[in-house]
Amino acid sequence: MGVMRLDLAYDGTDFHGWARQRGVRTVQGVLEEALGRVLRTRPVLAVAGRTDAGVHARGQVVSFGSEPDVDPVRVIRAVNSMLAPEVVVTQARWAGPGFDARRSASARVYRYRIWTGDVPDPFTARFTWHRPGRLAVGAMRRAARDLVGEHDFASFCRRLADGSSTVRHLQRLAVAGSGESIEVQARADAFLHQMVRSLVGTLVAVGDGRLDAGSMPAVLEAGDRSAAGAVAPPHGLTLERVVYGRRAARRSSPEV
Amino acid sequence: MGVMRLDLAYDGTDFHGWARQRGVRTVQGVLEEALGRVLRTRPVLAVAGRTDAGVHARGQVVSFGSEPDVDPVRVIRAVNSMLAPEVVVTQARWAGPGFDARRSASARVYRYRIWTGDVPDPFTARFTWHRPGRLAVGAMRRAARDLVGEHDFASFCRRLADGSSTVRHLQRLAVAGSGESIEVQARADAFLHQMVRSLVGTLVAVGDGRLDAGSMPAVLEAGDRSAAGAVAPPHGLTLERVVYGRRAARRSSPEV
Repeated sequence: MGVMRLDLAYDGTDFHGWARQRGVRTVQGVLEEALGRVLRTRPVLAVAGRTDAGVHARGQVVSFGSEPDVDPVRVIRAVNSMLAPEVVVTQARWAGPGFDARRSASARVYRYRIWTGDVPDPFTARFTWHRPGRLAVGAMRRAARDLVGEHDFASFCRRLADGSSTVRHLQRLAVAGSGESIEVQARADAFLHQMVRSLVGTLVAVGDGRLDAGSMPAVLEAGDRSAAGAVAPPHGLTLERVVYGRRAARRSSPEV
Repeated sequence: MGVMRLDLAYDGTDFHGWARQRGVRTVQGVLEEALGRVLRTRPVLAVAGRTDAGVHARGQVVSFGSEPDVDPVRVIRAVNSMLAPEVVVTQARWAGPGFDARRSASARVYRYRIWTGDVPDPFTARFTWHRPGRLAVGAMRRAARDLVGEHDFASFCRRLADGSSTVRHLQRLAVAGSGESIEVQARADAFLHQMVRSLVGTLVAVGDGRLDAGSMPAVLEAGDRSAAGAVAPPHGLTLERVVYGRRAARRSSPEV
């Protein structure tokens, strides 16, 4: 058995998220079914980022054990003929024997798009949160700086059922604005459930003056979700890229 | 009665084109219905560009006669609350008494997007023709230069039933390429039915070597659709802008 790695892009609009679930359409569900037809046996997929309902991916990564006679080029063509352009395999290749798309990942990079113009834009509506009204980008940047680093992000996630650690290393949180388009880029070793959308909702609350730009240390300190801003809607969020370093990251269950 | 002008953007994917037709969903149909609810009477819309099924618009313009007590801001809000983000009124305003969105237009500007990468892109798929394989942009530009000007474009349109003139003034036909993305921009006083898509299909045939870059004068001369390239698919096409000059253009029935 070898380990095959697939890189994926998908429009998450009409999916009930990544993870396979009975009775609903999920990215994992349709992809495993398509792969099952190509490979004649349904694989068990490891995934780098378990995206929520409505969240998109440009650089998602999955891996699975496979017989070594499978041709990666045939996998790309066959899966894309069934699922594109909604779900697209952009690359397929053999990975090293210990590779696991989830456990080997050292960082995830997400991008969140916001459109602040008065009226919606039909051309970006699927992938962008339309939130009319000016945002103070400078204040958002100041707040973002205080969130970067290794912190307990309990204020920015759904309470975990199993009481496991909510400490994560947020390596980058950048706010880029040009006119009425604003983008937030977030990079971390791993993200907690709804963490990016919670960070974005909080930065937006800073941008429109509901929260103070200097209040982030107190929000982190609170350890309570009610201290942060509301969770931003899913359709503005895209998993852009997964980073694999030389050493496998130990942390498990990356979710957004 | 005053004349109100609306500027529109729409995603044409799920519409059977602009023009109202019994039993199918069209942009004119849903817009007239929405306006009917706001105005309490269904208006008769004049439109600058009667887009085909699957064609989009960023700067479509319509006009209609209206009682002078109608508030343009209320029209924007009410229509958008019913139709956005699929169809969006970006501006609403009173126009001069002789204004007619179709007859007053002096030029239309369309943009056609092509993606030549190996695999589809889920983020641009609705508004871009995925046509894998490199295109020779230089050759396409040389061909485009010979098409600009006032010509009989009979080779680039559906045969007209009524035998009216197929002479049009193509003011601009520009091919812009960056990597695997190519855009064709076309501006004319008015376009014949399927003319932009036929021009694009012909330029693509030049770009992949099926037609010679120097053959455009002969293709125009032929006056026959079979001399040109195939019609490019509708979803890559967007009506970007309508130009209104001081004098009303005399030409009627602009169509693409």
